[in-house]
Amino acid sequence: MDSAVHALSAPSRLADPQEAISIEELQLAARNHGIPLEALRYEVTPPGLHYLLTHFDMPAVDPVTWRLPLTGRVARPLTLDLDGLRERPRVTTRVTMECAGNGRAHLLPRPVSQPWLVEAVGTAEWTGTPLAPLLREAGLTDDAVEVVFTGSDHGIERGVEQDYQRSLPLAEALRADVLLAYEMNGAPLPVQHGAPVRLVVPGWYGMAHVKWLREITVIDRPFDGYQQVVAYRLGNTPDGPGDPVTRIEPRALLIPPGFPDFMSRARFVKAGQVVLEGRAWSGWAPVTGVEVSTDGGEHWSAARLEDAQASPWAWRGWSWTWDATPGRYELSVRATDADGRTQPLEQPWNRGGFASNLVQRVPVAVIDG
Amino acid sequence: MDSAVHALSAPSRLADPQEAISIEELQLAARNHGIPLEALRYEVTPPGLHYLLTHFDMPAVDPVTWRLPLTGRVARPLTLDLDGLRERPRVTTRVTMECAGNGRAHLLPRPVSQPWLVEAVGTAEWTGTPLAPLLREAGLTDDAVEVVFTGSDHGIERGVEQDYQRSLPLAEALRADVLLAYEMNGAPLPVQHGAPVRLVVPGWYGMAHVKWLREITVIDRPFDGYQQVVAYRLGNTPDGPGDPVTRIEPRALLIPPGFPDFMSRARFVKAGQVVLEGRAWSGWAPVTGVEVSTDGGEHWSAARLEDAQASPWAWRGWSWTWDATPGRYELSVRATDADGRTQPLEQPWNRGGFASNLVQRVPVAVIDG
Repeated sequence: MDSAVHALSAPSRLADPQEAISIEELQLAARNHGIPLEALRYEVTPPGLHYLLTHFDMPAVDPVTWRLPLTGRVARPLTLDLDGLRERPRVTTRVTMECAGNGRAHLLPRPVSQPWLVEAVGTAEWTGTPLAPLLREAGLTDDAVEVVFTGSDHGIERGVEQDYQRSLPLAEALRADVLLAYEMNGAPLPVQHGAPVRLVVPGWYGMAHVKWLREITVIDRPFDGYQQVVAYRLGNTPDGPGDPVTRIEPRALLIPPGFPDFMSRARFVKAGQVVLEGRAWSGWAPVTGVEVSTDGGEHWSAARLEDAQASPWAWRGWSWTWDATPGRYELSVRATDADGRTQPLEQPWNRGGFASNLVQRVPVAVIDG
Repeated sequence: MDSAVHALSAPSRLADPQEAISIEELQLAARNHGIPLEALRYEVTPPGLHYLLTHFDMPAVDPVTWRLPLTGRVARPLTLDLDGLRERPRVTTRVTMECAGNGRAHLLPRPVSQPWLVEAVGTAEWTGTPLAPLLREAGLTDDAVEVVFTGSDHGIERGVEQDYQRSLPLAEALRADVLLAYEMNGAPLPVQHGAPVRLVVPGWYGMAHVKWLREITVIDRPFDGYQQVVAYRLGNTPDGPGDPVTRIEPRALLIPPGFPDFMSRARFVKAGQVVLEGRAWSGWAPVTGVEVSTDGGEHWSAARLEDAQASPWAWRGWSWTWDATPGRYELSVRATDADGRTQPLEQPWNRGGFASNLVQRVPVAVIDG
């Protein structure tokens, strides 16, 4: 198998400075997809429009025979099934989820992987049962350190054959709002979102919300699986470990105003009072400010924030009225959260292209109304 | 507006021979999406996995105030509403729909547009009311020639501002199986598939199935709108008219066997008896044969076809058992229909990149089981 692996599952690499998007990157872009930006108009993203990233293939899991062992460093291992989970306390939380690789395709040099621009985001109502009571019921042993979540999705990445696996430190796994979710927007989980059951970790980038769960294992050391220590690190060299990717950096997006050109997606807007609207979010702390620029980031104006959401984990609407006169503009929008985190105008770079939250730039032509 | 249009809405072009995918093409690939190929395992494509192409933005149409005028060369113009359509005869038809641009990104030189590889397809159960009785009720005048369908999606394409519009010749519009569809897979149409009502023209490429319908107009001459006479033509020059794109050419796709590499999507398969499966379809005539090749198209073997579908317009399942021994392979599959149409191994080219049905090629490494 070694020679086939090396030929078909290559190490990670950076694109050459002049290298455009490859067929392999396009192949990922054609199967995974972002939110069409006009769908930011919905507070809860309708089914089929939420961003989607599948590492390997979507597995077909039979919900009737599905079982979820909760094992490892626990006193009383459990085996859960779907009916059992549904009989437990039921919680619904609105959560904005974003792919950790969002923005990657704008980086220079570009890490060669799923080539997101700005659209890898969505907000859903996730319904499930909290994880923490299950962990307590199983009885964590004193040496428990992390909880490993294993999905049924199987493949090879950078030469490593694996089931998709991620861990959470015990303190995160025991948060009251971490769910084993079996519904999305009031309906059973769609296959592409992890049916029958996925993990939901509000505030964290998408890689933590393991889909198609098939095992939960409590361990007595930091997890060293591929998706934990090789992928999803914020390092700048191929070999250094780098910091782990965890929570979502603040970001604001604009519902593109006016109407688009098919090919360039540039916008045409009729002159006059134009209400610019969009959404802003952060996984670290509530969004406290959104600013808008119509001159590519030279000058900024404060937008009006909608009332805070019922959920602290969901995006927040914003609006700003623009007195648009004919001409060419570049619209940008920038979010700041209660921790003082904000969005950079020039992107700090990392080798995996993770947690990039460079401000969005939307070319607009204002035309006579 | 002219200078803005020229700057932001450029003429169509071909990529240079060495030119890789541009950011503009990627932007389209990130918002539109194909079917993840493993989802070919479903006879009816689950919601959210059906391919999707939006020319401009998805409009937000209020189904309560929505009205559909049926006007033009008719004796008694009608104004339809959603309740009225739902009270009329109700028909459900299973239809395989494919984007006319499927395969475009493999062409050399590559027409610069939505860069599909092979995945722009899906099969749904469309429910609605037949169009023909409505046309007869309105009373076509003797000089009626075509029926124009106007959507609410608005934008600029190649410098032409437009609502999306397509026509059908009268004979096609009067086919018993052409529907005004208000449900998909048993639920109200999702916004991205044309809510509240879209046209469904079984057998035709996707461009004919106008979404977000807002007007039906009977005219006394061939329609000369942009999407009819400029886009969606099979010509080889920028100026010649070319033949219109109409029905779907035969194509077969493979459910990729084994498990994938994340980045290359190449497949790894354990040695032994491997049942290869997939779907095949044609908009011209029923699929009558599917052949499989494991050597890149040198030799072909006949696959077993599943019983014909209840619907003549839906794809047909096929399977073939492969005695897979360790090594590297390129799998291909080729459909033939009752009209004798089949798939080429080398692609005849046209300037829009339409109706391409080049056989799929799937690299596979067979490894010790």
